[in-house]
Amino acid sequence: MAEQTKGTILSGMRPTGPLHLGNLAGALANWVALQEDYHCYYEIADLHALTDRTDTSAIRGDRLEILLDWLAAGLDPERSVLFVQSEVPEHALLDTLLGMFVPVSWLERVPTYKEKVRELGLDESASFGLLGYPVLQAVDIMIYRATAVPVGEDQLPHLELTREIARRFNHLFGEVFLEPQALLTETPRLPGLDGRKMSKSYENAVYLKDSAAEVEKKVQTMFTDPKRVYRRDPGHPDECNVYLYRRVFDAVNADEVYEDCQAAGIGCTDCKLALARAINEHLEPLRERRVALASQPDRLHEVLDDGARRARETAGRTYQAAYEAVQLSRRK
Amino acid sequence: MAEQTKGTILSGMRPTGPLHLGNLAGALANWVALQEDYHCYYEIADLHALTDRTDTSAIRGDRLEILLDWLAAGLDPERSVLFVQSEVPEHALLDTLLGMFVPVSWLERVPTYKEKVRELGLDESASFGLLGYPVLQAVDIMIYRATAVPVGEDQLPHLELTREIARRFNHLFGEVFLEPQALLTETPRLPGLDGRKMSKSYENAVYLKDSAAEVEKKVQTMFTDPKRVYRRDPGHPDECNVYLYRRVFDAVNADEVYEDCQAAGIGCTDCKLALARAINEHLEPLRERRVALASQPDRLHEVLDDGARRARETAGRTYQAAYEAVQLSRRK
Repeated sequence: MAEQTKGTILSGMRPTGPLHLGNLAGALANWVALQEDYHCYYEIADLHALTDRTDTSAIRGDRLEILLDWLAAGLDPERSVLFVQSEVPEHALLDTLLGMFVPVSWLERVPTYKEKVRELGLDESASFGLLGYPVLQAVDIMIYRATAVPVGEDQLPHLELTREIARRFNHLFGEVFLEPQALLTETPRLPGLDGRKMSKSYENAVYLKDSAAEVEKKVQTMFTDPKRVYRRDPGHPDECNVYLYRRVFDAVNADEVYEDCQAAGIGCTDCKLALARAINEHLEPLRERRVALASQPDRLHEVLDDGARRARETAGRTYQAAYEAVQLSRRK
Repeated sequence: MAEQTKGTILSGMRPTGPLHLGNLAGALANWVALQEDYHCYYEIADLHALTDRTDTSAIRGDRLEILLDWLAAGLDPERSVLFVQSEVPEHALLDTLLGMFVPVSWLERVPTYKEKVRELGLDESASFGLLGYPVLQAVDIMIYRATAVPVGEDQLPHLELTREIARRFNHLFGEVFLEPQALLTETPRLPGLDGRKMSKSYENAVYLKDSAAEVEKKVQTMFTDPKRVYRRDPGHPDECNVYLYRRVFDAVNADEVYEDCQAAGIGCTDCKLALARAINEHLEPLRERRVALASQPDRLHEVLDDGARRARETAGRTYQAAYEAVQLSRRK
């Protein structure tokens, strides 16, 4: 299997709640597809979840929610390695080792660090772990010798920092790490029901685990083209959130919808009903798998046990190589 | 054994070369004595050695040099746990976990961090690991549930930071860590042969492994009372480095020497000869043990293997408790 792949992929998600349509369209659907061509490591980044919170009580449950969503969406634990970050001790080992050679100034310059400090009003209380986020992220990628990381344009600077960290270590101690390539992926960025960023905290998300009725209800609340006041008014699909969703979940009909909307041939209510139907068609098989899996908690733990074991095989080899390169291993 | 002790001690040294008389008088002699009353963990802090260098080639050899000096000076691997920091993976595990909850601002305020950055001219290249030095140090202490740490006055702020880190974690997640107490120890601070700080880089140190002839030669180069020009001039022992050494290594004769010097009853050359003799008497048994041990490298590795095993037993329990307190452990 691994022999025939184009390379190795690492990607991950922080366990911050059940996944929504934005996660599915923006990442998960792509992850499922990547399994065809790559050897994939998919990580539930629970250590990274600790960088910006001190209430950790939801993380354990959210790890399992995410795993359920992953499996339901088609991540295949036979092919891909699905694991929890904190259950692979080599991440922390390499994190502490690698941090010794990463200049603080590189980390202080990361825009997302400054943004996060501002956004959370942290200032004095931003944690050492938050500052070190990019080091642990570099570890995640490098420890599996990932050749490629699926990213959007906006994440390119983060990947470049990982590459710089790899280069610096290799320069100092010899070629231990690969410099991962960006696998630039154009995934639809799906706004929330109200047009803002889809987010649990805005309560504007459709979750993969929502029932068909919940999806219908939520879709009915969606904001549409604000310029179309009456049913007879022509619509502006390019400015309509519902149309954007239909392009993603009802692609075959999208062109027709576009014309119908502009010609006032279809009303917003009907358009939403059609969208809800399309989303539900999309989610129905996921929901079925999710329900079946949720009734087998042992199976979930087996998947994570097996994932941790396989992840450790690779991670252990890489950590050992780094430890030897720094000349800390013993020579008896 | 542990039942009868007053508590648990953790202390450590960075492997930066063979130990000198300053290390012996300032720390090691005290460590040996502490074994009588405490359960002791003594750490060769090789990870900490990485915080301020990128040339790591000497660390592996220096770890063994230090162990030789420790054993020669009387650290007893049957009673105390002698181990290499990087060989107890739980240090890195707890370091990454704990760092998530330590404010960066606490670390930036540590005076030794700022000094080190200035001293090494680091500025832009000070490493994330150097900034995180106090976190890893707190881990070293807390992971063995040390009740006390032997420190001088000048190190009290560092210990206070460890206590603050323990308090913060306990406040957030429940009582996992002990707050270690300072075991204030008045140890002689021995200057180098030239009166400056004793340091390998100043080439002003007498090493525990120096031969008798080397000790004599080095002692002859010592600076003495600058105001005593002729043999017949009365000396000022309080301003004489040689006298300071005699107080440490020839305590029984110190009072007599003091008077003789002031009365010009003894000349500096004879005084140095007497000091060299006293130091050599002190070092001779250490040297013999050192030579014997150096011929048994397998024995050294056994000591470190056993130390790492015993250290991991305690460290593993503490890390597991912290991991559970943060609620990351799985509930199957």
